[in-house]
Amino acid sequence: MIKKVGVAILGVGVVGGGTYQTLVQHHDFYVKTQQVDITVEKVLDRSVERMAQLGIPQECIAGNIEEIIANPNVDIVVETIGGIGVAKDFVTAALRNGKTVVTSNKELICKFSHELEKLAKRNHCGLYYEASCVGGVPIIRTLLDGVQANHIQSMMGIVNGTTNYILTKMTYEGADYTEVLKEAQKLGYAEANPTADVDGYDSMYKLSILSSMAFHTKIPYTKIFREGISSISAKDIAYGKELGYTLKLLAIGKNSGKEVEVRVHPTFIPKDHPLASVNDSFNAVYLTGDAVGDVMLYGRGAGALPTASAVVSDVIYAATHSDVKYSTFKNNATAEADIKFVSNFESAYYLRLTVADRAGAFAKVSGTFAKYGISIVKVTAEEGTTLILVTHTTKENAVKNALAKISENNLATIESVIRVEQ
Amino acid sequence: MIKKVGVAILGVGVVGGGTYQTLVQHHDFYVKTQQVDITVEKVLDRSVERMAQLGIPQECIAGNIEEIIANPNVDIVVETIGGIGVAKDFVTAALRNGKTVVTSNKELICKFSHELEKLAKRNHCGLYYEASCVGGVPIIRTLLDGVQANHIQSMMGIVNGTTNYILTKMTYEGADYTEVLKEAQKLGYAEANPTADVDGYDSMYKLSILSSMAFHTKIPYTKIFREGISSISAKDIAYGKELGYTLKLLAIGKNSGKEVEVRVHPTFIPKDHPLASVNDSFNAVYLTGDAVGDVMLYGRGAGALPTASAVVSDVIYAATHSDVKYSTFKNNATAEADIKFVSNFESAYYLRLTVADRAGAFAKVSGTFAKYGISIVKVTAEEGTTLILVTHTTKENAVKNALAKISENNLATIESVIRVEQ
Repeated sequence: MIKKVGVAILGVGVVGGGTYQTLVQHHDFYVKTQQVDITVEKVLDRSVERMAQLGIPQECIAGNIEEIIANPNVDIVVETIGGIGVAKDFVTAALRNGKTVVTSNKELICKFSHELEKLAKRNHCGLYYEASCVGGVPIIRTLLDGVQANHIQSMMGIVNGTTNYILTKMTYEGADYTEVLKEAQKLGYAEANPTADVDGYDSMYKLSILSSMAFHTKIPYTKIFREGISSISAKDIAYGKELGYTLKLLAIGKNSGKEVEVRVHPTFIPKDHPLASVNDSFNAVYLTGDAVGDVMLYGRGAGALPTASAVVSDVIYAATHSDVKYSTFKNNATAEADIKFVSNFESAYYLRLTVADRAGAFAKVSGTFAKYGISIVKVTAEEGTTLILVTHTTKENAVKNALAKISENNLATIESVIRVEQ
Repeated sequence: MIKKVGVAILGVGVVGGGTYQTLVQHHDFYVKTQQVDITVEKVLDRSVERMAQLGIPQECIAGNIEEIIANPNVDIVVETIGGIGVAKDFVTAALRNGKTVVTSNKELICKFSHELEKLAKRNHCGLYYEASCVGGVPIIRTLLDGVQANHIQSMMGIVNGTTNYILTKMTYEGADYTEVLKEAQKLGYAEANPTADVDGYDSMYKLSILSSMAFHTKIPYTKIFREGISSISAKDIAYGKELGYTLKLLAIGKNSGKEVEVRVHPTFIPKDHPLASVNDSFNAVYLTGDAVGDVMLYGRGAGALPTASAVVSDVIYAATHSDVKYSTFKNNATAEADIKFVSNFESAYYLRLTVADRAGAFAKVSGTFAKYGISIVKVTAEEGTTLILVTHTTKENAVKNALAKISENNLATIESVIRVEQ
């Protein structure tokens, strides 16, 4: 009763290389424990050197994608190239030819999942993408098969390891952003061009995928409010600490049943919140469901083997679950039309202002907030001309308007605005 | 393409009642998002009052189990009675008649899973038991379909809410065990007879189930080393804190590939370990896999709705995955014969001793440890006659023998022995 499964891997860089090694080294283990005999039939990569380093035998090396999709021994195509260029062409070609696809490609799934899932459905094959979000943490499997009995009301995730590494260093060493970024780049934790991570694009893609699943609709990334960490100062982290907060770059999705809000931004959370102790390059997703309450999944969000764990788990799942081919068959929503997105969301706010004249300034500043219906919970006494305020939960636009008024009237300079979640 | 599924619920106490409510209230939600139309066809319970309170319609009330297993509209039988009396008889009858069973019954699964799974297999039906361990946290789904690509090397879990509540109170309020236990009983967090929880039996059952899945064999509960929390004093928790440790009742499973060790006991862990901040009645399982590295799942381990979330997720899974009926078909191991259990395991140890004569005692005590090959990492200076020691990693038996020798020679009184994990 051992099932034979042939796999082709497109791209054997970090994740694809890890996937190849995991499949080869665990072959007998999967025969024994999963009753599947998984063989890597073909590998496609531009780099002959990389394939040699991995010890890929000559007969497994494919010259082109056609050779793979024409091969009747290939049941599952693993795409670990990344991006939306050839990766998209190859995935499309594979699905068109009835090959099930397992991918780690967040940009591809974020931007084209609906198109690709329809294609998969038409061709009676599967599309799996656990590895596209939060590395080895089985968050997609959990959303599909672990907490699917729930209306998911809220989701807060630390889904980018680079920014979490930088914020952790800033928090525990009091170091400045540019300094820590440089160090992270030297250690290979951040790219030479760090924009995708530090400006929140990576988190935004992942939030689009995860919230689409959690909320059973398509959440386009274009609807996600996004703000990165590059303007965060060590000073704000330190003031936040005094107030009992830890700073994290959070990907937040909330679904009231009527409205959905989706946003990525630096966020102060109470220091005893389970997400507050997720440090360094670790990732975590904190979910709230109407029956299950709060659930958190924690683990490595990146790296060759953790991500390979997710890819191979999908390969095994695809091989052993013939009638479930992912959200395709459950999620027929057609995006925006179904759903009302909130941009004027509710949050509490941490504000750092510089006032010209401390004595009179606070009264005038709080008068302005009061005029916009914003009440202040905490004020941290600070020497000189710095004012630190934390507001009650209020509307984003009210804060924006109040701050514009404060600037306009020269009551204070707005140094920092950081959202606070409880 | 909506699939019709009929469910019978046996026992509508806390978990069964929550399951009934969840299924009824989410009926349309599951039609829309899961393409399944789940109807509660029958309910069986001794208490007419309880069924009335839940608003169960008269035509759904069954008079006996025969009525349920003979009903062709019942596809899935949910067992939420508990124990191994009628629950076992009813589950056996259901499986024999080809009904798929979903159960929250840890004792039943711990003691009879192999027998019941064979029965399920023979009758082409499924046996699902996510709700038997750690309430709403999808740990079984994760082991089966999320991290199945990995050799699981280690598992450490806080899997009992009552003891975690008690230890949290003792840690943060410095309160004594008996005092906190009484309070917990008053609040309904602990039973009048608290043995199952505080002596670690509940954790032991769960560890048997979870480690059997993680290690792909049957781990009988009789092989599990078990020690409860009733002899823990507030003093030891306070000394541990000074040393940077937090005390938790852990269920620990380790698999070296050659040997398996399974144990439940109070454990000091470093205060920055992710498990250390799992407080109150929350539960968590921390896994280490050879590819994925460290993964933690956190959430509510008990309660009507969190546990119902797990039961209903299993019902939906059973209804939508026709070819996967749980570990039955993957895990053919036949227990003890396959596996070598370690009882003389390795650990570090926290020791509290009372010495008669402080001046000479330490030299003699450490001399004895040295004779047994045990080295001491830390000694906390303490007024008077108390000695606090932490050992390097060593063998359980070496510590036992050294302590016996110390007692025998009247060098010190052994007040506490607490294992330490890193």
